Amino acid sequence: MDHTELFRNIVTKRSYLCVGLDTEIEKIPQHLLKYKDPVLEFNKRIIDATQQYAVAYKPNLAFYECNGPAGWVTLGATLDYIRKKYPGIFVIADAKRGDIGNTSRMYAKTFLENMDFDAVTVAPYMGEDSVLPFLSVKDKWVVLLALTSNKGADNFQYHNEDGLRLFERVLSVSKKWGTTDNMMYVVGATRAEMLRDIRKIVPDHFLLIPGVGAQGGSLEEVSRYGMTNRCGLLVNSSRGIIFADDSRTFARTAGEKALEMKNQMEQHLADRKLI
Amino acid sequence: MDHTELFRNIVTKRSYLCVGLDTEIEKIPQHLLKYKDPVLEFNKRIIDATQQYAVAYKPNLAFYECNGPAGWVTLGATLDYIRKKYPGIFVIADAKRGDIGNTSRMYAKTFLENMDFDAVTVAPYMGEDSVLPFLSVKDKWVVLLALTSNKGADNFQYHNEDGLRLFERVLSVSKKWGTTDNMMYVVGATRAEMLRDIRKIVPDHFLLIPGVGAQGGSLEEVSRYGMTNRCGLLVNSSRGIIFADDSRTFARTAGEKALEMKNQMEQHLADRKLI
Repeated sequence: MDHTELFRNIVTKRSYLCVGLDTEIEKIPQHLLKYKDPVLEFNKRIIDATQQYAVAYKPNLAFYECNGPAGWVTLGATLDYIRKKYPGIFVIADAKRGDIGNTSRMYAKTFLENMDFDAVTVAPYMGEDSVLPFLSVKDKWVVLLALTSNKGADNFQYHNEDGLRLFERVLSVSKKWGTTDNMMYVVGATRAEMLRDIRKIVPDHFLLIPGVGAQGGSLEEVSRYGMTNRCGLLVNSSRGIIFADDSRTFARTAGEKALEMKNQMEQHLADRKLI
Repeated sequence: MDHTELFRNIVTKRSYLCVGLDTEIEKIPQHLLKYKDPVLEFNKRIIDATQQYAVAYKPNLAFYECNGPAGWVTLGATLDYIRKKYPGIFVIADAKRGDIGNTSRMYAKTFLENMDFDAVTVAPYMGEDSVLPFLSVKDKWVVLLALTSNKGADNFQYHNEDGLRLFERVLSVSKKWGTTDNMMYVVGATRAEMLRDIRKIVPDHFLLIPGVGAQGGSLEEVSRYGMTNRCGLLVNSSRGIIFADDSRTFARTAGEKALEMKNQMEQHLADRKLI
């Protein structure tokens, strides 16, 4: 999927919502535990209930890995379910990988070839040769960490060399490694005020924005400062949608929460005359 | 295992060698492919042949993940093999993880509780709250990336704020998060000349040094500039040992390569009067 197709999907669905599948087995409703793969059952119901309003899903690898080899089976089955039932949805492996070249090559193979995710999140610390192996896979994306939503972002990401903060350096250096068709950046919604500076460096790249909802970021601010004339935003919500209700009605509630976000997004897209 | 015990093992074995189990299935000898789990068979033979000379093993997650759920079975079986047959050896999950707090917590659970590795490598970009969940697991270690061995280290790790380079900031900030009993740092052997500066910031921490061998780093320089009065070094070699020979004699050759390194290390330890 390229930039144009992703934007077309956003226009069609009138939404730039990404639903984070941070499916923690301890948090899913009790009645699902009778199934052979409770996490998969949970994911399927969440996907069915939210897919009308979402252009992307983002399984968080940590929550699958912690279930051992079976967790990887669940991850693969979740991806297959989306691919078969709802083709055209963008699916991001939130894996935060990145290592020396030959090792990143294996991670790229895992997520972008063997598993057919559209994108994988990558940590920038190790630089160009840790990122290029992901970018060399045709029609796939790197989502590179720039300015994250957590408190710890303050420790290193603002480290400032002659007015250029580390996250700005990450953006300005790395944007030459790929294109707006195969790179996007993580920018936390909790840092919405930084989006103006970020848009000066990457005016056209898609940004994946976590931190709306449970982490306190504002969709309105993110949209005001971050939206481009081809949207350029994927706003992620995980816990605020999938764990909004821990009873038997969890999927319906998740659908309602996704619809609420979609309705707000539709308004922002209309305000910018993109729909 | 704490700092004292790790040093004791180094003195006993007269070696600070870590063998990297970057077991790429395409590179293992043909005759092993008849086994149900060729990677596990390869690892067992490598471990048997090198364990006399190694104080640590470091499986690189990328090479297991790329085999899907079965790869995680291989990883677990490799760890079990070491634990049962050679107790007391330090085993590092080279996973380069790191995410917001609740997610890092799941990664810590995966590697340090469910799987009982001694340590996991962590990327520092997301700061304190991405690292603390690993440090909160008793008797386990974080191996934090500081200055890596690859060319891409130049992109961001030298970003310089008022004389403090990013890798130095990572060291000076993060050393307050843990202790010399639960934190060590990755410093590439290809950057041996930086070890003097690094030792000014972290005089006592263990350093995990990749990049000797295939990547061109010098054991002698690393030992000269990095060794403390309790050794403070784990020097990793992966390809230079495990893929030194692709024939039926691969394990014997790996043992010989490990012995060569151990002999050099023994000399460096003796020169410093640590044995």
